[in-house]
Amino acid sequence: MRYKVTVQYNGAGYAGWQKQPGLATIQQAIETALEKIHQRPVSIQGSGRTDAKVHALGQVFHFDSDLNIDVESWRRALNANVSKGIRIVQVESAQDDFHARYDATQKHYRYWLEMGAFNVFQEDTVFQLNQALDIPLMQQASRIFVGTHDFTSFCANSLDELPDQVRTIYGLEILSDGQKVQIDVFGNGFMRYMVRMIVGALVKVGLGKLSVNELRGILLAKDKQAGSFNIDGCGLYLVDVIYDKENNA
Amino acid sequence: MRYKVTVQYNGAGYAGWQKQPGLATIQQAIETALEKIHQRPVSIQGSGRTDAKVHALGQVFHFDSDLNIDVESWRRALNANVSKGIRIVQVESAQDDFHARYDATQKHYRYWLEMGAFNVFQEDTVFQLNQALDIPLMQQASRIFVGTHDFTSFCANSLDELPDQVRTIYGLEILSDGQKVQIDVFGNGFMRYMVRMIVGALVKVGLGKLSVNELRGILLAKDKQAGSFNIDGCGLYLVDVIYDKENNA
Repeated sequence: MRYKVTVQYNGAGYAGWQKQPGLATIQQAIETALEKIHQRPVSIQGSGRTDAKVHALGQVFHFDSDLNIDVESWRRALNANVSKGIRIVQVESAQDDFHARYDATQKHYRYWLEMGAFNVFQEDTVFQLNQALDIPLMQQASRIFVGTHDFTSFCANSLDELPDQVRTIYGLEILSDGQKVQIDVFGNGFMRYMVRMIVGALVKVGLGKLSVNELRGILLAKDKQAGSFNIDGCGLYLVDVIYDKENNA
Repeated sequence: MRYKVTVQYNGAGYAGWQKQPGLATIQQAIETALEKIHQRPVSIQGSGRTDAKVHALGQVFHFDSDLNIDVESWRRALNANVSKGIRIVQVESAQDDFHARYDATQKHYRYWLEMGAFNVFQEDTVFQLNQALDIPLMQQASRIFVGTHDFTSFCANSLDELPDQVRTIYGLEILSDGQKVQIDVFGNGFMRYMVRMIVGALVKVGLGKLSVNELRGILLAKDKQAGSFNIDGCGLYLVDVIYDKENNA
């Protein structure tokens, strides 16, 4: 039986999603829980990696099991065995050919920034900029990214390892209550540091350190050296992974 | 010169306020910062201790210094040297005889509870009860505590070490948006675990495990063995310390 699982995690204290020897990672924590339940190693396949410190509201992975357990009991058994900061939200039966990574058609990321006073209670979950931003100017600049573009200037993967750096951003929304800023990015796929580099560039615009025209030029330049925009991972959340296929078994 | 300082801290990762050998505490972190600035040990006096995991929005302490630094520069210098999760909010010049502990006339504590789904982003800052409470019944029960009472049944200090366990609670307010519950307690002084034991007892009432009459009986019993109500420190905040005297120099 294949299962599709939705998981939330607080990335603080984890070296990201991907298993790495000697480091606490989300994948490792979940596979350890599955191993306890099965009494043998069980591997999981995520929709994609998230980096160190990055959070998830709705990361998705799949795994296979021959144990006869209903989905609600799976959810409880996993939650009883995962480490701190990880919470299984939902377990669903999936078709045998469902693949958490290859079947994903859209992802939604969110970035949280604090413009107001430093907040010791959100140091790991909201980026502490603690400076005012020109939100209308950022909203204007954000339109540059929407649509299908070559994002070579806005990702860390080399062109050797990833020759096609064209991606589509369906939407980019910036909301603020005057203190906190919420930046939502919807796209068909995201390369390494892509959301953080887009947000970092928009923050430079909002601080008056980069003009909208300069930003447009950097996107068109398709140049890894064009700018240094990578903002800290602590404000980033993988909100949702969309699958178009009907996956439930 | 004596200074009065207001400090916020996230108690997660700290073994409370009070210095203890080999443990990370808030007092130790602040005294380490002062030692770096003075190049010699400088001790601070807090308004009172907070326990492991407990937070503060407005803890107050005083210290003496012969350095000629203005209050805003003091604030910045301290913030540049304290460890993670600690933030100096304000530094004020105080009269020579101002005492952060003995001059405090009122304290305000707050306790946060989550009734809704487990929240991995507030695991250290909001107690994850994840069950519904009968808020109106808790509000009715809370009136038992308001006024001047012997709180022997609701604190951990022995009568040998602290013979007078009579304290006055000026107000106890319970608010809820249906998911989170905020419990505010105002009093002239709080003994060890007193707020947590009051909140823990009110939660038992809200869960239907203790009646309002039983609660009244336990308060009147003045009995250390009457109940076991100490709820986790992670939801507790020292909000404010009130000084009636005009303390500014």
